[in-house]
Amino acid sequence: MKVAVMGYGTVGSGVVEVIESHSDTIPQKIGGETLEVARILDLRDFPGDPHEALFTKDFNDILNDKEIKIVAETMGGVNPAFDFTMKLLKAGKSVVTSNKELVAQKGLELLKAAEENGVNYLIEASVGGGIPIIRPLTQCLAANNIEGIAGILNGTTNFILTMMIEQGMSFDEALKIAQEKGYAEKDPTADVEGHDACRKVCILASLAFGKHVYPSQVETEGITNISLEDVSYINSAGGVIKLLGQIKYISKDSIAAFVSPAVVYNGSQLASVKDVFNAVLVRGDAVGDVCFYGPGAGKLPTASAVVADIIDCAKHTDRKKIFGWGAGAEDYVVDYKSTIKMPFYVRAKADCARVNSVFSEVKYLSRKGQPSDEVAFITDVMTENELTEKLKGFEVINIIKVTNY
Amino acid sequence: MKVAVMGYGTVGSGVVEVIESHSDTIPQKIGGETLEVARILDLRDFPGDPHEALFTKDFNDILNDKEIKIVAETMGGVNPAFDFTMKLLKAGKSVVTSNKELVAQKGLELLKAAEENGVNYLIEASVGGGIPIIRPLTQCLAANNIEGIAGILNGTTNFILTMMIEQGMSFDEALKIAQEKGYAEKDPTADVEGHDACRKVCILASLAFGKHVYPSQVETEGITNISLEDVSYINSAGGVIKLLGQIKYISKDSIAAFVSPAVVYNGSQLASVKDVFNAVLVRGDAVGDVCFYGPGAGKLPTASAVVADIIDCAKHTDRKKIFGWGAGAEDYVVDYKSTIKMPFYVRAKADCARVNSVFSEVKYLSRKGQPSDEVAFITDVMTENELTEKLKGFEVINIIKVTNY
Repeated sequence: MKVAVMGYGTVGSGVVEVIESHSDTIPQKIGGETLEVARILDLRDFPGDPHEALFTKDFNDILNDKEIKIVAETMGGVNPAFDFTMKLLKAGKSVVTSNKELVAQKGLELLKAAEENGVNYLIEASVGGGIPIIRPLTQCLAANNIEGIAGILNGTTNFILTMMIEQGMSFDEALKIAQEKGYAEKDPTADVEGHDACRKVCILASLAFGKHVYPSQVETEGITNISLEDVSYINSAGGVIKLLGQIKYISKDSIAAFVSPAVVYNGSQLASVKDVFNAVLVRGDAVGDVCFYGPGAGKLPTASAVVADIIDCAKHTDRKKIFGWGAGAEDYVVDYKSTIKMPFYVRAKADCARVNSVFSEVKYLSRKGQPSDEVAFITDVMTENELTEKLKGFEVINIIKVTNY
Repeated sequence: MKVAVMGYGTVGSGVVEVIESHSDTIPQKIGGETLEVARILDLRDFPGDPHEALFTKDFNDILNDKEIKIVAETMGGVNPAFDFTMKLLKAGKSVVTSNKELVAQKGLELLKAAEENGVNYLIEASVGGGIPIIRPLTQCLAANNIEGIAGILNGTTNFILTMMIEQGMSFDEALKIAQEKGYAEKDPTADVEGHDACRKVCILASLAFGKHVYPSQVETEGITNISLEDVSYINSAGGVIKLLGQIKYISKDSIAAFVSPAVVYNGSQLASVKDVFNAVLVRGDAVGDVCFYGPGAGKLPTASAVVADIIDCAKHTDRKKIFGWGAGAEDYVVDYKSTIKMPFYVRAKADCARVNSVFSEVKYLSRKGQPSDEVAFITDVMTENELTEKLKGFEVINIIKVTNY
């Protein structure tokens, strides 16, 4: 069976590698056929690459090749990936993707196009790299009403936070090491500001609750405001700071979804997720908490998820996979600040008397070298708007949500 | 769509409960139809149960009801579950099961019968209760060659070990509490001797490597020999003792599989799995380590896995699911003691001089109140047979495998 790969970067070249290195075992999974990479689309040249004969710069070479039934889109970005994918689906080809930006922005249209054309658009690699999450969420947990999801969805920020927590490194030092190791890009904005995690939250929310959630609907805060002082206070409370994507079911017609640093208490499965690893915790009304852990990025892990989707397409050439989602109303994602109650970590220039005059119940935290005019505490459960109201006039240094996962 | 439930114990009654409590959301997952529990088979009487009208003691009431297309087998045990399941499959009905004993003993025949009759035999609930593992293993990781699997597969023993590790309770005390909480049965043999974990290892191995593994092929050791002294030594080494099921790929024609206590170092995802929770770690050649965590047992978690399989059957009435396994040769599961190399924890009545004369490289451990004639150490990597040879003449108190997961 002939497949094409669009985008020969880290993931795309990994896809070719995984297909070739598993050529002995893949046929038994797809009824005896072999997978053959017939075309690779990339605008760059790769002189000396053993697949040189397969390269093309012309998308039409793939679109018009009737023998190519499955295409892996590992280009990244919305354009031209959207245009290419749409044309392929309309031409009756199945597409599998690792492109979270595209799925988060255009998943609704693309899944609809796949359905209308009787082909598959599979997206396992677009969330959590190699971690199986989409089939577990849509199939294995089908008998549950999902109450909420919390995920460590970005390896770069989790690596930085791990270095801060375990090695006492500053954010800047940890970022530098992440860049040296190739975990962070030269411009680390998409990672450290939470945009990458935000896209994955959109896809998870769309899958879990059946209505498309767009990045613009998800309030997103990164980790650049986290200091070693915060890490130290939260350590004294028996917890760690993680960049979490959180999704909460409210009703058939509304959910909350946000990305932010969050205090996770030790004992949670999320607290022990370190370095570049990712994890997604799903809370179902029947099953309780289940958690999926693994490498959230990386060439071969992500490629293996892409190839698993290719295998699934190859097994089911004759039918569309039953999953997808619809459109949500304008107000589908509510303002979590006025609706979701939780405790908060607050660090401020203030004394306890002042804090006690405003908060009925707080748990004070301490750290080595704490200045006498600084307090840090965990509040009672309230909405973020209620907290903001209470903190009016306070000289606040930082506020971090406390999660119940 | 009419379904029947065979066995109205903890899981079976949970299945009925989950179907009924999700009657508003299930139809949208199976093309608009509703799931209706039409019959419940149990030899016991349940006077006053709201489903009284559905009960039958006669299996033929289900077998001969042409409208019943899907049956949940939650009876447990090999007989008569095997006979019933076989008859149902041959009658063209799909069967879903939580019965690990039956799948471990007779999965090969039953999956074959399902295939021959164009129906489904789905088994998600038979491993790891509510944890999604079977679809992730067979579908999401399809592009990987699985190198090994390690699982905490029994909640009762994990609870007992957690109490020993965290509360300093003796095995007997911890078992008593497990019994009081309903986690352990009056006769706890199947749990504490590892037989329950062994069945799950058989199913995981069969799925991952495509050939049936029987419980008699899996060397199984329980946790009754674990003492607080061992817990203490291993704590000093930065690890914990877990009851692990381990499976290792050797070649297309051979694997190793065994259940035993094992030292897991802190930092492993398996080390942080506490109380009655279960986890399965899968090591793939492309993806690396992925781990699935959740409730390994319990009424609603297990029932939710059964109902997810029912939903899958209801979506795919017209075709068989593509998964299954074949028969393995007599010597398919090798003697791990002569083939698998690993480090071991050894505790013995001896002095260091004697230990040093036999082992080239060991790491000594210590504990509070350690008698002067007792040593505990972690050996270099070797087979268990090599270790036994070296320890000839030693007064050994305990030996525990050290895992590399």
